[in-house]
Amino acid sequence: MSQARHQTRSHSSPRSLVILGATGSIGRSTAQVLALDPSRFHVAAIAGGRDADALARMAIELKTSFVAIADPSAYGALKDALGSSGIEAAAGPDAVVEAALRPSDLVIAAIAGTVGVMPTYAALAAGRTVALANKETLVCAGYPVMQTVAASGATVLPLDSEHNAIFQALGGAPISSVETMTLTASGGPFRTWDAARIAAATVKEALAHPNWAMGPKVTIDSASLMNKGLELIEAFHLFGIEAERLDVVVHPQSVVHGLVSFADGSVNAGMALPDMRVPIAHCLGFPHRSESGARKLDLAALGSMTFEKPDLDRFPALRLAMDALKAGGGLPTVLNAANEIVVAAFLEGQLNFGAMAGLVERVCDRSIAEGWSYLPASVADALAIDRQARETAAALLD
Amino acid sequence: MSQARHQTRSHSSPRSLVILGATGSIGRSTAQVLALDPSRFHVAAIAGGRDADALARMAIELKTSFVAIADPSAYGALKDALGSSGIEAAAGPDAVVEAALRPSDLVIAAIAGTVGVMPTYAALAAGRTVALANKETLVCAGYPVMQTVAASGATVLPLDSEHNAIFQALGGAPISSVETMTLTASGGPFRTWDAARIAAATVKEALAHPNWAMGPKVTIDSASLMNKGLELIEAFHLFGIEAERLDVVVHPQSVVHGLVSFADGSVNAGMALPDMRVPIAHCLGFPHRSESGARKLDLAALGSMTFEKPDLDRFPALRLAMDALKAGGGLPTVLNAANEIVVAAFLEGQLNFGAMAGLVERVCDRSIAEGWSYLPASVADALAIDRQARETAAALLD
Repeated sequence: MSQARHQTRSHSSPRSLVILGATGSIGRSTAQVLALDPSRFHVAAIAGGRDADALARMAIELKTSFVAIADPSAYGALKDALGSSGIEAAAGPDAVVEAALRPSDLVIAAIAGTVGVMPTYAALAAGRTVALANKETLVCAGYPVMQTVAASGATVLPLDSEHNAIFQALGGAPISSVETMTLTASGGPFRTWDAARIAAATVKEALAHPNWAMGPKVTIDSASLMNKGLELIEAFHLFGIEAERLDVVVHPQSVVHGLVSFADGSVNAGMALPDMRVPIAHCLGFPHRSESGARKLDLAALGSMTFEKPDLDRFPALRLAMDALKAGGGLPTVLNAANEIVVAAFLEGQLNFGAMAGLVERVCDRSIAEGWSYLPASVADALAIDRQARETAAALLD
Repeated sequence: MSQARHQTRSHSSPRSLVILGATGSIGRSTAQVLALDPSRFHVAAIAGGRDADALARMAIELKTSFVAIADPSAYGALKDALGSSGIEAAAGPDAVVEAALRPSDLVIAAIAGTVGVMPTYAALAAGRTVALANKETLVCAGYPVMQTVAASGATVLPLDSEHNAIFQALGGAPISSVETMTLTASGGPFRTWDAARIAAATVKEALAHPNWAMGPKVTIDSASLMNKGLELIEAFHLFGIEAERLDVVVHPQSVVHGLVSFADGSVNAGMALPDMRVPIAHCLGFPHRSESGARKLDLAALGSMTFEKPDLDRFPALRLAMDALKAGGGLPTVLNAANEIVVAAFLEGQLNFGAMAGLVERVCDRSIAEGWSYLPASVADALAIDRQARETAAALLD
């Protein structure tokens, strides 16, 4: 990843941007930041999942040239909604990859879930600068993806708030000089609940995140702390740091997002109010700085910040993810895929909150017993392991 | 100042070091850090004030080649204490400057007070890399000193914990990209006291700093918050940042030492447990990292951090310093010199704690009225203003 330095913003011709996941939470926040100074970027292409109306509205608002919708059956609705705008449209997974590959200076990779892996990978393989919000690209296929990044000369800017904070806190220091990297976790809505109450939590309770407004999948993962585990795996690949140097601390105020500790006892922390527009503006501006529209942190007004150890007994998903990271091979891929299935099942009322981790663990165990959690040598390998894990999880669900 | 990056430590031949203020708090902590790996440095010279026995012990312990004592009358005692060690000794202010100018890769400039200005300035004028703990060099003579630094190609590494934290939090970012820099203040022992109680505080109460073990002058300044004001003036010169971008927040735990805020809402914070060995090890290692011997920060064990606005009514010294910084010219020089006189008078029982700020303010006012708080064009100018301020303060004391 780039170790270039932030500089003051220079005013020059607009840079071109691609937004993958334009109608999601990150995509909408990106549009808000762009609106602060529309002259900075030309939006070359955007892509979304299935909400044709929202995607068309955003395409028109952002004056993009090309819009792709992943769901092929939504093509007609997208064309209708685009009306006489003159914006080129296409549908299906290949169209999303086409959007990713439109010439650009920066790709915002913010499609949630494993469906985001291929278009993100395509942009990285083409050597683009990618602001990475899609965790799954690295969690599912970290080894082959980072090999591709090294070969293509792509630049990865971390767009997750934790990784972005750590990237800033690093300040270009070499990873070999880092003693530990710490990701903070809000602890989610169940931070103070006992295990029995967590196990029986409803969907509504799990979606009530105290600090962040995010999509449902990541919000459930935040409630179980699986999200933090996936972020550890992401950090492992993104920064190229040993698993045993990665750490998590629970910080309910979500103001410190990540910390880097050095041998001399110095700790650099990346902070901001919990607002995704901050890391988005950081990535959009990099290596310069520009406004995000987010409120500025006022420590005296905040008053206090608290920190506690994560409880791996009440939040077994985090322990599972840590174990998968340490075990390595294809286990992170298996864990991630199985987790997507169990979260979907929980959201659909098919599974208790407390049953999710156990089912993910059973899929991991089976992948070891059956010998298919091997280290993926390619993204295709990773996606094959991913499919196997999903099928296994689905079978266990029945 | 250097914007070079930290790198992993390479093992090479020992670097040579000069320690000015060897028997003070910073000097003793430096010796502790050096003892962790004596092979890293050859101590070319050390200098101290008047404690011949302590200075000789340290000279022998550090295997230095040359030792200077500022007090000429202590020369005999120093020679006696050095015995047959073979270490070269000299006494008087010129000897301290000679120590500063001994060939070295790094000078620790840790003589407290205005007496530290000339030897520090000499090292900077000679183009040395100086780890700066002597605030007065920049508070008293910031403009001419920084002009000299620019001309000589000297490198200044900030050794004050706050400035060191900000230097690290900056991570090489250009100052023009910084929105605000915030120094934290512990609030000192009187943080929660009412004004009347503060005004009547005893020397013992004022010396009881909650977090830091420091020399008496800086401890009294920490109790009045004058120390934070002097540090703002220091930061102004050190980082070349506008006065209105500098800020103070009270943080009683002294774990966050400094913060840098950017336009996008990102805030990078420099943290460490309150232990001077951390910034000392950072400067000794720079641009590499090495152990300091300090305990490592454990946020979960710490539990909480709190922040509050400084109260400029109960702590008028901070307001005075902020006003002097904004007024510019020679007022910071006047403020600093007058403050040294009133702190000495307080320590000797000649002045109430609550009377210090008023007396400093009267000296500042008189310097304006009498026209001698002009912008010092040279260090000699600054020292002339300094003398005038001391004489005025002493006269007002009587």
